[in-house]
Amino acid sequence: MARASLSGFPEWLPDQRIVEQRVLDVIARTFELHGFASVQTRAVEPLGELLRKGETSKEVYVLSRLQADEGEAPADEVDRLGLHFDLTVPFARYVVEHAGRLTFPFKRYQIQPVWRGERPQDGRFREFWQADIDVVGDGELPFHLEVDVALVAAEALTALGALGLPPVRMLVNNRKVVEGFYAGIGLDRTEEVLRVVDKLAKIGPDDVARLLREEVGASEAQVEACLALSRLGGDVTVVDQVRDLADRYAVVTADDPARALLATGLGELSALLEAAEQRAPGVVAADLSVARGLDYYTGSVYETVLLGHENLGSICSGGRYDSLATDGKRTFPGVGISIGVSRLLSRLFSADLVRATRSVPTAVLVAVVDEDRRAASDAIAATLRSRGIPTDVAPTAAKFGKQIRYADRRGIPFVWFPGSDEPGSDQAAHGEVKDIRSGEQVAADPAMWSPPAEDLWPRVVAVVPQ
Amino acid sequence: MARASLSGFPEWLPDQRIVEQRVLDVIARTFELHGFASVQTRAVEPLGELLRKGETSKEVYVLSRLQADEGEAPADEVDRLGLHFDLTVPFARYVVEHAGRLTFPFKRYQIQPVWRGERPQDGRFREFWQADIDVVGDGELPFHLEVDVALVAAEALTALGALGLPPVRMLVNNRKVVEGFYAGIGLDRTEEVLRVVDKLAKIGPDDVARLLREEVGASEAQVEACLALSRLGGDVTVVDQVRDLADRYAVVTADDPARALLATGLGELSALLEAAEQRAPGVVAADLSVARGLDYYTGSVYETVLLGHENLGSICSGGRYDSLATDGKRTFPGVGISIGVSRLLSRLFSADLVRATRSVPTAVLVAVVDEDRRAASDAIAATLRSRGIPTDVAPTAAKFGKQIRYADRRGIPFVWFPGSDEPGSDQAAHGEVKDIRSGEQVAADPAMWSPPAEDLWPRVVAVVPQ
Repeated sequence: MARASLSGFPEWLPDQRIVEQRVLDVIARTFELHGFASVQTRAVEPLGELLRKGETSKEVYVLSRLQADEGEAPADEVDRLGLHFDLTVPFARYVVEHAGRLTFPFKRYQIQPVWRGERPQDGRFREFWQADIDVVGDGELPFHLEVDVALVAAEALTALGALGLPPVRMLVNNRKVVEGFYAGIGLDRTEEVLRVVDKLAKIGPDDVARLLREEVGASEAQVEACLALSRLGGDVTVVDQVRDLADRYAVVTADDPARALLATGLGELSALLEAAEQRAPGVVAADLSVARGLDYYTGSVYETVLLGHENLGSICSGGRYDSLATDGKRTFPGVGISIGVSRLLSRLFSADLVRATRSVPTAVLVAVVDEDRRAASDAIAATLRSRGIPTDVAPTAAKFGKQIRYADRRGIPFVWFPGSDEPGSDQAAHGEVKDIRSGEQVAADPAMWSPPAEDLWPRVVAVVPQ
Repeated sequence: MARASLSGFPEWLPDQRIVEQRVLDVIARTFELHGFASVQTRAVEPLGELLRKGETSKEVYVLSRLQADEGEAPADEVDRLGLHFDLTVPFARYVVEHAGRLTFPFKRYQIQPVWRGERPQDGRFREFWQADIDVVGDGELPFHLEVDVALVAAEALTALGALGLPPVRMLVNNRKVVEGFYAGIGLDRTEEVLRVVDKLAKIGPDDVARLLREEVGASEAQVEACLALSRLGGDVTVVDQVRDLADRYAVVTADDPARALLATGLGELSALLEAAEQRAPGVVAADLSVARGLDYYTGSVYETVLLGHENLGSICSGGRYDSLATDGKRTFPGVGISIGVSRLLSRLFSADLVRATRSVPTAVLVAVVDEDRRAASDAIAATLRSRGIPTDVAPTAAKFGKQIRYADRRGIPFVWFPGSDEPGSDQAAHGEVKDIRSGEQVAADPAMWSPPAEDLWPRVVAVVPQ
C-alpha cells in the first residue's frame, strides 16, 4: 500500500542525493584540511544526559522496545533512551566518556542526523542532518580558537558557492559584551534578558520592550539601552559604538566585574572581526542582537544567513561554552559551530538553485547485443571499471533504441556497443562508444578509452535563471 | 558525571573512525563503479510498515514524544513510528512511494545505521551500520541481476583486503532448489522446513532432525533427505549431486511443479556459480544449508563468512525477493545484499587486524613562535591548505618541544617552523619543515613543498602479527 510522506522527515530522490553527497564532501574536506578528526556518536543518549540543560524536553523522541523482555524492569527516567536533538550534547558526553583516550585540545567534526519532535515548517524538520565542528580543551581553551571555528565554517560555506550556494553572511556577537552591558546598566538577570532579546527577529522591538518590562522588570531607560545595543552591528568600528553606548548609559559607573566583562568581550569581538576581515573578507559582520537562546554559551556566538534567503533563518550557528562537558573533576571548555545541512539542501531544491548533471554515478552504459553475449558486455564493463570509470550494463538485450533510452532517462552520457569479437582473432573489435548527447560515435578499446574528465562522475551545477 | 558506555551502541575513537571511513569509501566506490545510485531513507517508519513481514516485532524500537502536544490524539498503532531494523523494508517503501519519479530497473546503494532491541553479543549490536545494494524492477527482474549483486558485494569485500580485511567466502543457495526438493520429497510446508534448517549451524543436525519430526511432521526418510541436502556444497558440480540426491529420494516421481521448481533453481544456481568462478575466482561457493530465515526470499540467497573468523557469523547476506515492494497494483521484484559494516569493524578492531597511520587528518602542524606572530603561522597553514594539504596550527606558543609532542601524540608526521619573515624583505624566510619520525629538517616554501603522497592523508594498513 502506498503511504503518504511523513511530514518533517524529508527524503531526497537520487539526483538530489547526489547534491547532498557533494555538499557533504565539500564540508567534510574543508573540515579535514583544517585538521578536524571525524567522530560519530550513537543516535541515542540517556534522557538524563539529554535533559541536563533543560528547555528542550518537549522536542525529545523517547525510545521503548515494542516488546520488552518479560520481567525486564522499566528503566529509570534518567536511564531511558532518547534520540539526540543536536550533536553538541552527545559530543560533550563522548569527550567526558573517552577523555582518557583523546588528545586535547581535541578538534572533531561530526556529520549526522538529529531528531526533534517539533512541528515541521519550511526549513524546520523532525529529522535533519547537521555538520558540526568543535574544539574542546582540557581545563582551558585559548580564545583564538573562537576565531578559527567561525572562519572554518565560513570557508566551508563559501566553498559551497562553487556548487551554486548563494553567498552567506555570518553574524557574530559575544556573550561577555552583552552580559557585561546588561549588568552594567543594572539588569542582573542576564540570561532572562538574553532569552527575551533572542526573540527580536520573531516578535519585533515593541514586544521585546514589553517583555523586558514585564518579565525582567526593566526600566524605560534599560529597555531603551537594550534595544539600542541590539541595533548595533557591522564592521570592527562597532566596538567603539558599543563603548559610546555604554558611556551614554553610564556603564562606566557600574561595578568592576560588569565593566571588566564588557571590556574583555569587546576585545574578543574586535579580534574576531579583524581576523575575519583578513582571512574571509566580507563574510563576517557583528550583530549585537544575536543572542542564541542556549544558556551554555559564554563568549563568541555565531549565526549565519543565506543572502537573499534570510527568511530561512540561521543555517550555521554556534558559540563558545565553558562548562558543557564536565565529569565533576575535570571541565572541558569548547567552541563549536553547526551547519544545518538539511535546511540548506531543502532551500537549494525548493528554490531550484542547483542540479546534478545526472541521477546515477554511471558514465557509460554497455549495451547487450543478445542475452547469449551478455558475458562480452560484462567483460567490457569490468575493464572500464578497473580503470575507474563508473559503468553499467543494459538490463536486457532490448532493441538498441530502448537501451539508449535507458541511458538517456538517467543522464548517462555514453553508450558502448560491443563489437563482434571473433574468438581467436588478433584484433578484437571492441566496439564503438556513442556520446548520446551529440550523437558522435567512435571505435574504441575499453582498455584505452576514457570519457572527458567532466563526464566521469556526476557534477553539481548552479541552475542559471531563465 | 561520567557514564558507562551503553551496551550494544558501539562508538569508535578517532583513529578507529578513520578505518571506518576508509572501509565505507571502498564499499561506496565499488557500488558507484557498478552504477548504483546512493539513497538514504529516514530513520523511522510507521509500525504498520515495519511489522508487515512479522517476526521481528520484538526487535523494534518505538518512538514517542517526551511531551506530546496537549490534546494530541494518540497515534493508531500502525501509524506509530519505529526505528528501521534493516534497510530493505524502508527501501521497499521508498520505491513504492517514489515509483513515479524513479527509473526501473532501479539500482541503489544505501549506507546507514539500523536499530534492533535485541540482546547485544559479540558482533551483534543494538545500533549498527549496514551497506546495502538492491536492484528493483517494475513488474519483472531478470535473473542475471542475482549474479551481479552477489559479485558486486564480493568485489567490495575483496577490495577491503587492501586495508587488511581477511579473505571472505560467499556461500550461496537458491530457494527454488530447496523448496522444490522439499516439496518433491513430500514436505509441503517448505517455509517451516526452511526455518528449522536455518538453525543448523546453531543447534546442530540432531536437534534439526528432532524439530523436523516434531514440528513439521517429517518422516525418517524425509529428515535424512533434508540433512543430506544441507551437507552438499562446493563448486558447480554440486548441481549434479543435488540431482543425484533428488533421484535417490524419488523426487523424480513428484508432481510437476516441484520438479520444475527444482530444475529452474538448479539452472540458476549453476549459472551463478559459473559466472562467479569466471568473475571472482575462489570467492563464491554453494552451500545447500544456507536458508536465510526471512520469508520473502524466492531465488538466490547469500551469506558470507570472514575466513578465520567464521564464529562472527555472516558479514554479508541477502537474496532475491518477488513481492516485498508492492502498492497493490504494481509489484517491484528485487534482489539485494547487505554488508554488516559494524560487525566487520568490531572484529577488525577486537582482533587488532588493521590500524590507521594517525588519529587526525592532519599532515602538517605549523608551530607558533609566539602568540603575537600567530598570524604568520595561520598564513603558512592557509597556503598549505589551499594546495590540498591538511594542516593544523599549534594551539599555544609553547616551547617547540611541547609543540612537537602535540604532533607526535596525534601521529602528525611533519612540523613546520615559521621563519623570521621580515616585512619588506624580498626573500621571505618561510621556515623549515621537520619530519618528526626521521628528524630530518629542511628549508621550505609553503607554496611549493608537499609531503610524500603516502603521508598526505591517514592510511589504513594491515597489522602484521608479531
